[in-house]
Amino acid sequence: MKSSARNTIKGTVKKVEIGSVNAVVTLEVAPGVEISGMITKESAESLALSEGKEAYAIIKASDVMLGVE
Amino acid sequence: MKSSARNTIKGTVKKVEIGSVNAVVTLEVAPGVEISGMITKESAESLALSEGKEAYAIIKASDVMLGVE
Amino acid sequence: MKSSARNTIKGTVKKVEIGSVNAVVTLEVAPGVEISGMITKESAESLALSEGKEAYAIIKASDVMLGVE
Amino acid sequence: MKSSARNTIKGTVKKVEIGSVNAVVTLEVAPGVEISGMITKESAESLALSEGKEAYAIIKASDVMLGVE
Amino acid sequence: MKSSARNTIKGTVKKVEIGSVNAVVTLEVAPGVEISGMITKESAESLALSEGKEAYAIIKASDVMLGVE
Amino acid sequence: MKSSARNTIKGTVKKVEIGSVNAVVTLEVAPGVEISGMITKESAESLALSEGKEAYAIIKASDVMLGVE
Repeated sequence: MKSSARNTIKGTVKKVEIGSVNAVVTLEVAPGVEISGMITKESAESLALSEGKEAYAIIKASDVMLGVE
Repeated sequence: MKSSARNTIKGTVKKVEIGSVNAVVTLEVAPGVEISGMITKESAESLALSEGKEAYAIIKASDVMLGVE
Repeated sequence: MKSSARNTIKGTVKKVEIGSVNAVVTLEVAPGVEISGMITKESAESLALSEGKEAYAIIKASDVMLGVE
Repeated sequence: MKSSARNTIKGTVKKVEIGSVNAVVTLEVAPGVEISGMITKESAESLALSEGKEAYAIIKASDVMLGVE
Repeated sequence: MKSSARNTIKGTVKKVEIGSVNAVVTLEVAPGVEISGMITKESAESLALSEGKEAYAIIKASDVMLGVE
Repeated sequence: MKSSARNTIKGTVKKVEIGSVNAVVTLEVAPGVEISGMITKESAESLALSEGKEAYAIIKASDVMLGVE
């Protein structure tokens, strides 16, 4: 499935934190560059996301804010 | 300002596309790794975002989906 | 690509409205049941979305609100 | 209340999963077509969402991605 | 329609900016406190939003970030 | 850090509800006007959000819907 999300970024799973309904999954997309996603616990299990696995961060452009110092 | 967004990722502006109400800004956050954000035209101007400038992609964990092939 | 989005709903493209940076695409997912998505113009073109084509609406559970009358 | 959400889709509650802060509610909007929403536990209770009840899935167009196979 | 959105905030329309596909509508919700929403041009027209009109800002809790200085 | 979010609204923390992975934080932004945000438990702790503390609600324009009665 090819999606309209402007950002589909390849990485490796570094950490999976499981809660009662949600899970937070952290990917390393480049040395020292991490992206964390909060998904339903059910999705984390159905995608079999575990440390070391290859996965993608999928993010709509309208969900990304920009900031400057 | 420190925000609750789980993802605050440093990068360099590679491209700014301006529309009638919106603008799409693309950052390079690591060699070959890009993140694009859609913000209001007014915000792009007020942050003075232009090619080569340092900026951050700010993304809530709940706005990041995960995918596997 | 299998994504963590809880909602991946199959439908047929009914309408594509193109703007300067965005496009609104309407799918029929069941007789009389439509879902519209706003994506970047670039994505609409890269997915070659046009009337009659089969496509999926992909929506995170955290982006769906519930309402009652 | 009439909202600006492009998608207001009528359905029947099929399942309610309650967590510590969140709840996932699944609606059937057409035979075999389901939409799940993640809302706060407090909202699920205040809307008295339970199996068989009529409810609406409310989704902004900018929160819907499109995908093609 | 009562929705699950945690935030339904009453205000008065101060400004409506119309683009090719989108519109940005600014409400005053208290003296000097404004909230702006980006909706489709079609929604702005169907809700007949114009300066001085009473309207509500509807925001899911998961779409609100917190920040501290 | 200055962000592209169209809405950066100052307030005082009124309530913090902690769950297993998430937390819901309610700010008073004007007398009787409240905004609640759902953030990760980790973010609530790292921002040291507690009752009476000054904080900002940060909301992208594209995440705000409008409603009329």
